[in-house]
Amino acid sequence: MTYANVGWLGAAPGRRDDLVAFLTRPSDELVGAGCLLYEVGTSDEHPDRVFVVELWTSAEAHRASLELPSVQASISDARPLLSGEFGGDRFTVVGSPLRA
Amino acid sequence: MTYANVGWLGAAPGRRDDLVAFLTRPSDELVGAGCLLYEVGTSDEHPDRVFVVELWTSAEAHRASLELPSVQASISDARPLLSGEFGGDRFTVVGSPLRA
Repeated sequence: MTYANVGWLGAAPGRRDDLVAFLTRPSDELVGAGCLLYEVGTSDEHPDRVFVVELWTSAEAHRASLELPSVQASISDARPLLSGEFGGDRFTVVGSPLRA
Repeated sequence: MTYANVGWLGAAPGRRDDLVAFLTRPSDELVGAGCLLYEVGTSDEHPDRVFVVELWTSAEAHRASLELPSVQASISDARPLLSGEFGGDRFTVVGSPLRA
């Protein structure tokens, strides 16, 4: 079942745009790991946050992706860009009005 | 610029699955209004919420969709299914690691 991970990451002071650049670096590996959609965004309402919407083929695919060596390295590399605050939700997709 | 509206709606007691059914009724009109993606989901962690991820061609398209007579009627029809609680974020998409 398609799995969604949506939320935001707090950026360290002055590092929001660096965090955006980091999160949007092209990755061939994500699709192979089961990532269907990964959109990164910003909002004037919360200028110190970077927003992310991810869709995965399954909760298991998402969980497994976090164990990939390249993803582990990324998480470590991202640390100086993060404030440590974050929020969001994870849920199972059950339908769409765009599909019959 | 692609615009994202992500969040959750609280369901009235016992009405979560009715709210899911309501939000996933097929709609031809959404695509015409600029809706690129509309995924509806649930989570055992928050059994009284229905989660939604929407992507739109622009913030203006999303705003204009809320004025469509059919959408206005839907909002009114949905009222008995809602607890009145809701949460979420709106943001502008600035990139994706899945696109070069």
